Amino acid sequence: MKENLSLQEAQSILLSHCREMGTEEVELHASLGRVLSEELRAEENIPPFARSPYDGYAFRALDTATATEEQPVFLSVLEEVPAGYAPTAKVGPGEAVKVLTGAPIPEGADAVEKYEVTTLKGNQVAIYSSFEPGTNIIPAGEDVVKGEIIGSKGMEISPPLIGLMASLGITRVPVYQQPTIAIISTGDELLEIDEPLRPGKIRNSNSHTLAAYCRAMGAKPLILKTPKDRTEEVGEAIQQGLQQADMVITTGGVSVGDYDVVKDAVRYINGEILYWRLNFKPSSMVAAVKDGKVILGLSGNPAAALMVFQLLGMVYIKKLMGCTDYGLTELQVTLKNDFKKPSPAGRILRGRLIYEEGNTFMELTGVQANGILRSMIGCDVLAEIPPGSGPIAAGSKLKAYLIR
Amino acid sequence: MKENLSLQEAQSILLSHCREMGTEEVELHASLGRVLSEELRAEENIPPFARSPYDGYAFRALDTATATEEQPVFLSVLEEVPAGYAPTAKVGPGEAVKVLTGAPIPEGADAVEKYEVTTLKGNQVAIYSSFEPGTNIIPAGEDVVKGEIIGSKGMEISPPLIGLMASLGITRVPVYQQPTIAIISTGDELLEIDEPLRPGKIRNSNSHTLAAYCRAMGAKPLILKTPKDRTEEVGEAIQQGLQQADMVITTGGVSVGDYDVVKDAVRYINGEILYWRLNFKPSSMVAAVKDGKVILGLSGNPAAALMVFQLLGMVYIKKLMGCTDYGLTELQVTLKNDFKKPSPAGRILRGRLIYEEGNTFMELTGVQANGILRSMIGCDVLAEIPPGSGPIAAGSKLKAYLIR
Repeated sequence: MKENLSLQEAQSILLSHCREMGTEEVELHASLGRVLSEELRAEENIPPFARSPYDGYAFRALDTATATEEQPVFLSVLEEVPAGYAPTAKVGPGEAVKVLTGAPIPEGADAVEKYEVTTLKGNQVAIYSSFEPGTNIIPAGEDVVKGEIIGSKGMEISPPLIGLMASLGITRVPVYQQPTIAIISTGDELLEIDEPLRPGKIRNSNSHTLAAYCRAMGAKPLILKTPKDRTEEVGEAIQQGLQQADMVITTGGVSVGDYDVVKDAVRYINGEILYWRLNFKPSSMVAAVKDGKVILGLSGNPAAALMVFQLLGMVYIKKLMGCTDYGLTELQVTLKNDFKKPSPAGRILRGRLIYEEGNTFMELTGVQANGILRSMIGCDVLAEIPPGSGPIAAGSKLKAYLIR
Repeated sequence: MKENLSLQEAQSILLSHCREMGTEEVELHASLGRVLSEELRAEENIPPFARSPYDGYAFRALDTATATEEQPVFLSVLEEVPAGYAPTAKVGPGEAVKVLTGAPIPEGADAVEKYEVTTLKGNQVAIYSSFEPGTNIIPAGEDVVKGEIIGSKGMEISPPLIGLMASLGITRVPVYQQPTIAIISTGDELLEIDEPLRPGKIRNSNSHTLAAYCRAMGAKPLILKTPKDRTEEVGEAIQQGLQQADMVITTGGVSVGDYDVVKDAVRYINGEILYWRLNFKPSSMVAAVKDGKVILGLSGNPAAALMVFQLLGMVYIKKLMGCTDYGLTELQVTLKNDFKKPSPAGRILRGRLIYEEGNTFMELTGVQANGILRSMIGCDVLAEIPPGSGPIAAGSKLKAYLIR
């Protein structure tokens, strides 16, 4: 059993135990935030026909070769085509068709002049300059050419992709099923939210924080009942989670105390422990696998649990959801505040990203202790303090990860 | 009627026409992403009692004054307290209580020594160093002190705030009602998603893109049927939107053509036009107000519509949702690519933020034309090219806005 892993090693082992979810089809509007399970190719051009970007006149560029401000060319206007209607006439030599914004370009025409710079006398329009073919024409397939890939397998579905799918008439979207994440908080001190406090007890917050993150990511949280803090009962809860979900997350019971039971519980159900503890603070965690499903054991301390969830759990869940872009975004930040505690073992700091003059700063969101959930509010970046560090002064540069 | 506004002026006029939504109470889990309609104060300490961060022994610091590696102090162990249980004994002179991680500190004790560095003989524990009061004790209220504000009115509810509310036993959360946004795409060329293409027609994508953005933000989109492209019918559709929703967004019919009807439609229903057109590309838009509700008219070109929605509409909707933090995040980006077109009128570029060595770069997401929705996919930053600019070289610095 490996111990004290780097973040990269911990991620990489966890990610190697990832399965592919099944697929399903959902309505276009329900596909927002889901993950494409198939590549999508355009079966049509968008737009499907060449069209005019302006109100104006469409004609053959050739006919305007001699046109000047002083000596305009006069063309006979055959008809007017608004957007949404098909031209009925072909444009021949000396002819033009009035087109409104978005109207199809009539056959034969290959240039458009804006309405404002023409003059009309009877049915003759005067054009005052010469044109190259293609001028002021939006070609068919300007946005997407038939056959092009508009979405790749593993892409998260964003509003503009929904718009593109709508353009292509895609009403049902192939997506991965959403993984279910069983969440088990352990600890005999835990009460449910709606219970009154009693001596020695605190309310369970971890299950709710983690469930909200899962939901925000597009996974399905399943909060299980807190088991009694004994090997067998915790083991049975994990076993139940494995049966009902695609991954199990526990909190509490992963450090070194007499009552720290998650590792024993995993062994009790014949799970394989992959590794234990990270080589930085917060270090408490255990990763295990059973029946091809990952069990991620987090600290009982709210902030410690959450940070390890963000650095490891969210990355794993993204991959489990089918996302090809599951890794954390790395960046370099400049620390805004002093952080006075030394970090002999290395440490993760929580903060808020600030953009100033092209640089990225991190402002600490508050007290950094393991039990302090409050400073996770508004935290969108986690930075690494390397092992062996003393106090870190404002202005220092740190490697960091975006958390969103 | 004002014309050709700067983004700042356009935002500021729109935001001055914002109403406050009603409020409601929702279940804790349903509050994710919603906006607090009341300040939340902690009615208890979190944690509610002082506790031990380790497995160890709790005692009076005073008793260890003479303790050294060679001459330890021996204390009588009265009992063992696991997490979740209340101590039954008071700690007096010469006494100690075994405490496990998370257990309450017994009355009388004011310091804890870790289990690993003690030795136990019978019921006597040896302590090998002297302690200051408070050592290794997590005080009550470490995370949140009773009476503190944990969430302010207008704060968006994040997973860690859900965790804090759970800790405090808050099962129902006061939030603003979600605004309904009526979306009307105009244009006789528009087909519904499930209709086959016909000559001159394209499918409506704007309604679906905008609805998805509204949903992602936490507002309720209401897509109305596309009216015939005539003043009266568009006016009636807008009127219907005003009755059913808190804001109306239209697309199409806002430029200068014969068939551009949104402004006329607003006048037809006796709405007040606030302003028309922006002083940069994409410029087409109109802002109006009727019955205290805003009508935002966007271009029919998908990318143009979307960018103005992101720069103006999303900011307005965030404020309408009750968010106090509704403004766009401004940053400076360094352009990764050349952009060769000149921008006499100023222009918004779409791209993707890249973090490199502490700097923020913007990589263009593709062709920047008004009709190209494709380059909005993966776009998370919009940059401003100032008016009167020629081609912009890679490496240039631009003012930009985060879009999320």
